[in-house]
Amino acid sequence: MGGGPFPTGAEWQALLEWTGTLADLSGTSTVLGWDRETIMPAGGGEGRAKLLGTMAALSHRELMRPDGDELLDSASASATTPAHDRVIALMRRERDRASRVPESLVRELSEASSRCVSTWIETRPRDDFATFAAALSPLVELKRRQADALDIGDEPYDGLLDQFEPGARAAQLEVLFRDLAAGIQSLLDRVDDDAAALPERTWPVDAQMTLASDIADLVGFERETGALAQSAHPFTCSPHSGDVRFTTRVDSSDPMGNILAVMHEAGHALYEQGFPQEFARTPLRDAPSLGAHESQSRFWENHVGRTHAFWTHLAPTLRRLFPDAMRGVSEDDLRRGATRVHPSFIRVESDEVTYNLHIGLRFELELAMIRGDLEVADLPVAWGDRLEQLLGIRPAADGEGCMQDIHWPEGMFGYFPTYTLGNLYAAQLDAALHDHLGPTAPLIERGELAPLLSFMRDRIHTQGNLRDAEALMADATGQPLDAGPFLAHLERSYVG
Amino acid sequence: MGGGPFPTGAEWQALLEWTGTLADLSGTSTVLGWDRETIMPAGGGEGRAKLLGTMAALSHRELMRPDGDELLDSASASATTPAHDRVIALMRRERDRASRVPESLVRELSEASSRCVSTWIETRPRDDFATFAAALSPLVELKRRQADALDIGDEPYDGLLDQFEPGARAAQLEVLFRDLAAGIQSLLDRVDDDAAALPERTWPVDAQMTLASDIADLVGFERETGALAQSAHPFTCSPHSGDVRFTTRVDSSDPMGNILAVMHEAGHALYEQGFPQEFARTPLRDAPSLGAHESQSRFWENHVGRTHAFWTHLAPTLRRLFPDAMRGVSEDDLRRGATRVHPSFIRVESDEVTYNLHIGLRFELELAMIRGDLEVADLPVAWGDRLEQLLGIRPAADGEGCMQDIHWPEGMFGYFPTYTLGNLYAAQLDAALHDHLGPTAPLIERGELAPLLSFMRDRIHTQGNLRDAEALMADATGQPLDAGPFLAHLERSYVG
Repeated sequence: MGGGPFPTGAEWQALLEWTGTLADLSGTSTVLGWDRETIMPAGGGEGRAKLLGTMAALSHRELMRPDGDELLDSASASATTPAHDRVIALMRRERDRASRVPESLVRELSEASSRCVSTWIETRPRDDFATFAAALSPLVELKRRQADALDIGDEPYDGLLDQFEPGARAAQLEVLFRDLAAGIQSLLDRVDDDAAALPERTWPVDAQMTLASDIADLVGFERETGALAQSAHPFTCSPHSGDVRFTTRVDSSDPMGNILAVMHEAGHALYEQGFPQEFARTPLRDAPSLGAHESQSRFWENHVGRTHAFWTHLAPTLRRLFPDAMRGVSEDDLRRGATRVHPSFIRVESDEVTYNLHIGLRFELELAMIRGDLEVADLPVAWGDRLEQLLGIRPAADGEGCMQDIHWPEGMFGYFPTYTLGNLYAAQLDAALHDHLGPTAPLIERGELAPLLSFMRDRIHTQGNLRDAEALMADATGQPLDAGPFLAHLERSYVG
Repeated sequence: MGGGPFPTGAEWQALLEWTGTLADLSGTSTVLGWDRETIMPAGGGEGRAKLLGTMAALSHRELMRPDGDELLDSASASATTPAHDRVIALMRRERDRASRVPESLVRELSEASSRCVSTWIETRPRDDFATFAAALSPLVELKRRQADALDIGDEPYDGLLDQFEPGARAAQLEVLFRDLAAGIQSLLDRVDDDAAALPERTWPVDAQMTLASDIADLVGFERETGALAQSAHPFTCSPHSGDVRFTTRVDSSDPMGNILAVMHEAGHALYEQGFPQEFARTPLRDAPSLGAHESQSRFWENHVGRTHAFWTHLAPTLRRLFPDAMRGVSEDDLRRGATRVHPSFIRVESDEVTYNLHIGLRFELELAMIRGDLEVADLPVAWGDRLEQLLGIRPAADGEGCMQDIHWPEGMFGYFPTYTLGNLYAAQLDAALHDHLGPTAPLIERGELAPLLSFMRDRIHTQGNLRDAEALMADATGQPLDAGPFLAHLERSYVG
């Protein structure tokens, strides 16, 4: 592991108290966000924005404490392992990023994004783009200012991207997405078209939450340190060691969204539960990038949750929980429901083949907004035009178009590409897992998922943030970032 | 109101930014606590303690900022209303309190109490006093150190009490509780004994939560700014303006606990929803004391919720929601169930007559612990002896004895007496309300509670923290703190 306890001298005590305070501030904002999505009344939006703004400002101030460089220099002198060096390097990187952005801008950004999320929650159901845009425009303007101030990489967008995927660059991603889109388009022409949705029946919400809980247990989610709830947009978070939670969304007319959301979010949650306890309250208790994080959610969602073996295993549970809705539904019907390839307006409901086209669309548009080539007011038209080129469909309302995701309102520009990186890494990991274990289908069919989790624990989870994602994934999969295994997986699963 | 906007100059902008940051830190701790009680997995206790400790330390540091006195002096120079003066006086009081306690002790206290709460949650169900005591003892020791450091009033306990009830003193309360106990004991001998519990039936949890929601609507709880959940121990909190939430507890064998908990907590919640918007993020957006806060919960619980008129109004709702359990149950049965006088081990289940004896017991014991006259190890025996003297019963297990309340684990020594002050103030307010409106029973019977709420809004809620509780209550009720109206209310309600 290379981790182990930290030096016991005063320098490291001081350093660990500092990283602990920063981790606590970050964990606190996590709880404030969870609470906002799951329970906060609508009227709390403005007040909550202030709380989050204050937390962001205090974090910034704490990170920039005047004696920070001295603290890091003295701790560095008594560092004896690569893990110690890594803690110091990560703190220096964060401090360098923070030093480039004034505290006032940090607070403005936090408040603007918190407000924009509240506006998004209100306006999306009624497709009210004008009101939404009035909250998004100032946020984009602030993000441009932040990107300029960061001045990382070759263009402003790189500074935003780097926060989520350290080392990644827009120019590299433009090539990646262009090639990937070409590969997917060629595959789409050859996809089997025998898939059909499940029959329209009622899948009661309570039973679906029981199912969510059963699936969480199946994949190995630990309940002593884990919780599960519902929200409009599924997400996973961990405010601190010993507390990992995720949400799912439940639609009583269809169980697929819930089941795949649980597999996805549980993948994130297993990652968080797998961090070594001794990394608590240090920057090592983290994934090295969101792409790395997404590799885990995509692995469980796509390489386990969309396999025939998984649905064979799950069918008896579904028949027990949904005796009416499951009448006459076979394992094959279920698997076909989960692997139906079908152009969709909604990213989170889209299939595994077209998914990355949705991401490519968002990447292009947010890059254009940060470059100043696209105004917020022009988003609906740009969105419709590009979606039509990619998938041949055009949304009739903005709620199922450019207003569908929470991430722009959250100010997370530079974040979407990490979804695609996660898909590619997941396919590389699945290939490595097959090399290591042989075929996984018999295990999945028997519900014996422990060997799969154990592989991820060893190669990914217990590594925390000991090295950057590129190095972590190269070590774990034996190869650099490559779209080949992902396209091969699609080919195997969806063609002929 | 005397409130109104604050001066617009730079001095007041700086002051309000400071009070805002402090309010945000406090609101953040509120969310962390709510989350811990309602959703956090058990394994999160230690990590959550760190977060709360860091928030407490940061609040302390912020309150003690080096330029604080200058800020207050310059703002004071441009203060033009009593409300402005009050903001400055409250900040000076808090700063003075904070200056007496070192930041390290603040953090230790927060962590010890957070840990003790987690231990309490684990150990209470199995009556494991030894494990509980091992977490409570260090906390009591820290509270003694805090009380010594505060050095407010005539003895250490006064410093703790003063935090919850500014100006109150142990010596004064000892007299009050002695006299009150005598009055209650004499009354207990004459109480009508015709009351009986409701028949043992099943009151489904889902329907009880619907009922909780209906009652919240009935009393005027605003949903745009309000939320409602379940927890083991009901409580109310408001992290910030626009967000007021409370919990209730639901027992499927009896609806009384839930109904009266909702009336009680909704009383607190209405108070928080009634603070003027312009007081947000200042010390004026608060009750002047917990006794004042409790006056509102007790008013709705006891002076509305335990009346015959209330049960007459609620009966049709109960028959609709619980057709089976309500079979053959009359309005009189309901009212008798809510006003049954019966020695109970559990404070929160105790009746209105014996309730303050439970509080007197806790006040005596915590005073003895802080004075150093009672060790934590000796609590079970002291508790049993005193309860036997007061009520003639002795608990067989500590879970229904000295481990029943969350407040000692929370470190809230000096808090219990405010419950009794609230009861006394509620009776004074009810008397003033009758002077103002005439008999309230016809209004309550028709479910027209708006005039009652309006009276409380005018005289209590909109006043926020413009003056201390004693002055607020004297203005609102026309008399100083006095047990007379409370004992007269018991006499009227419980003696034939």
